[in-house]
Amino acid sequence: MSETETVRGFQAGAVKAGIRGKDRLDVGLIYSEKPAAAAGVFTTSLVKAAPVLLDMEHLRSGRARAIIVNSGVANACTGEMGMALARGTAGLVARRLGLAENEVLVASTGVIGMQLDLAIFANCMEALAASLTVSGFTAVSRAMMTTDTVPKTAVRVMDLAGQRATILGLAKGAGMIMPNMATMLAFIVTDAAVRPAVLQDMLARSVRHSFNAITVDGDTSTNDTVLVLANGAAGNQEIGDGNSEDGRQLQQGLDAVCRDLALQIVRDGEGATKLVTIRVVGAQSDDDAERAARTVANSNLVKTAFFGEDANWGRIIAALGRSGAVFDPYRVDISFDDVMLVRDGLARGSAAEERATAVLRQKEFTVLVDLKNGTAGHDIHTCDFSIDYVKINADYRS
Amino acid sequence: MSETETVRGFQAGAVKAGIRGKDRLDVGLIYSEKPAAAAGVFTTSLVKAAPVLLDMEHLRSGRARAIIVNSGVANACTGEMGMALARGTAGLVARRLGLAENEVLVASTGVIGMQLDLAIFANCMEALAASLTVSGFTAVSRAMMTTDTVPKTAVRVMDLAGQRATILGLAKGAGMIMPNMATMLAFIVTDAAVRPAVLQDMLARSVRHSFNAITVDGDTSTNDTVLVLANGAAGNQEIGDGNSEDGRQLQQGLDAVCRDLALQIVRDGEGATKLVTIRVVGAQSDDDAERAARTVANSNLVKTAFFGEDANWGRIIAALGRSGAVFDPYRVDISFDDVMLVRDGLARGSAAEERATAVLRQKEFTVLVDLKNGTAGHDIHTCDFSIDYVKINADYRS
Repeated sequence: MSETETVRGFQAGAVKAGIRGKDRLDVGLIYSEKPAAAAGVFTTSLVKAAPVLLDMEHLRSGRARAIIVNSGVANACTGEMGMALARGTAGLVARRLGLAENEVLVASTGVIGMQLDLAIFANCMEALAASLTVSGFTAVSRAMMTTDTVPKTAVRVMDLAGQRATILGLAKGAGMIMPNMATMLAFIVTDAAVRPAVLQDMLARSVRHSFNAITVDGDTSTNDTVLVLANGAAGNQEIGDGNSEDGRQLQQGLDAVCRDLALQIVRDGEGATKLVTIRVVGAQSDDDAERAARTVANSNLVKTAFFGEDANWGRIIAALGRSGAVFDPYRVDISFDDVMLVRDGLARGSAAEERATAVLRQKEFTVLVDLKNGTAGHDIHTCDFSIDYVKINADYRS
Repeated sequence: MSETETVRGFQAGAVKAGIRGKDRLDVGLIYSEKPAAAAGVFTTSLVKAAPVLLDMEHLRSGRARAIIVNSGVANACTGEMGMALARGTAGLVARRLGLAENEVLVASTGVIGMQLDLAIFANCMEALAASLTVSGFTAVSRAMMTTDTVPKTAVRVMDLAGQRATILGLAKGAGMIMPNMATMLAFIVTDAAVRPAVLQDMLARSVRHSFNAITVDGDTSTNDTVLVLANGAAGNQEIGDGNSEDGRQLQQGLDAVCRDLALQIVRDGEGATKLVTIRVVGAQSDDDAERAARTVANSNLVKTAFFGEDANWGRIIAALGRSGAVFDPYRVDISFDDVMLVRDGLARGSAAEERATAVLRQKEFTVLVDLKNGTAGHDIHTCDFSIDYVKINADYRS
């Protein structure tokens, strides 16, 4: 994304509030100049951070106009004081921008169990509001970073019955979608006009094959949040049916932005050196396909073999075996990109293994598993598991 | 175990057959001089190695007299040729020792998908039989090693109505119970007399709280096997009831040997520097307790924090949150040994954290999680997750 990418009717900005030391952007704000349809998807964990609980409450109206995000402290496992802090933060933004408190969404990422100080937000609110510009999204994407090594943004343009509409997304996350310490956050804004309920359905659909189809370490966060605001500034007729021509255009745009951001997260996975797509086909059911793909994608032994550039298909078939998916081990085919390494459950020999090893040396490749037991399929995008993953996570708080 | 530990009526030995290079013991043999009751517990993976399938078939009689084990090649994902090899190996042992083929059990550990050569076993059989001595168990435990750094043995002595009986176990494994490449194997011999069906029940009970209560990396093998032979040489009256006084003695002995071996496996976990017991109490059901303990014990983020000696209880509570166990996050207590770090879901402050960090510096400690939602509990023994784990598994085959 260029630094000057904009979406009509939206402003954004970020400041150094001092949560993460003096010299890092750590609080960001996104603001819609007019009321916007709003939707969200959140962590499935039983332990939900205060901002997640607050956003679920605020989204009941289907409308919102601002998102405030901080990094450094997750405001998770912080009890009533944490809820009061999240609510107080939304209140500060609402008063400063002249909004209702429930038009403000809050997101946090960082250390669990530590309390934030409301004074931090009170003290930076003036500067935060002053930082708002139409081209401030990159600053927000930087303010969201924790173990991320690069900011993550994506933009798509749509044609909605002759009206040009833009969809712009920001994300942070270097652990799993729903990771633990390295929470996944994504904020998407569009100037398309769309009914809130339709937007919510569209978001859920996009998330399934983007943020929910990636994994870095199999861990799940207390804070994972995907929010979308759609303010209608593009001037298209409000989309009231996801299956209309405009609805399909918006869905495709949302799918593309979510998928783009999700793959950026895997590429920036903690310590990752490779982006690997695990594609299971020929499964008896969608559930079996997903279970099989996810078990392979989360296996530490498979992921360390990727890191070692070792075409160790035995670890893949062992992961399939314990996944719970139903198949005949002696019908399974396994390919690395276009190199078939295993046919009917048996190795195809050293020539195939040499060619597969060459595929493994690439930065990005696909492992195709054909269970030959049906027609269902599922993709999961994962990364390799490196020495640096351990270093990053052994040292995170210190 | 001292090198001269013996069990009446059993012999053991090992040779360098050349599967793992010239200078490593890689084939071992255990032999009972008289018919023995036999029982086994095997991997739950859909993908079972040939030796596992053969042993399940041979154990139908409830009797066996020999176990042959090799390291280096797992004979998994090897199809009909692999089954023929396992059967042929049992046949070679049977002919050499004058047994029926179905009195011989076979176990293998090593690389998946590679074929073994029957000539290797034919060529070493004479030397293997000649290596049998009453004190050869340590040699067998060495021949089973793959990524293990130490051989693992355990011995207990029981009094069965005045008859002294011994129970001796050997194990290998440095990944999870049911690990992947680093398959878990355990062989136990006793001179106690016991009915096969009773022995099978006892073994299943012992395994639940020993080998099935440990984890190194959450992966599961195609080859995991626990076998027990009981030849009655102690002269006790055959145990026909697990709840009799003698039955309880044998169960306790078996429990102790299995638990001892299981903890040795975790201590020797690939790259492990710490042995950590995750103890969940106050759960609504046994399933909830096990789910909660297992999710914490397998979390890469929790395990890297142990390695970093970081009292990062946020990662523990996040793992509990995604485990599926039912509880109120604001009732949970978490202690490291006797230091309570979290009370009712909230941090107890920096003094407690400092004391908890001191506990984390120990080589062995317990994380106690009280869900305060019932009376069920479960222990899982795990290790930390180090840089060396990745190094070991990225390089295993090369």
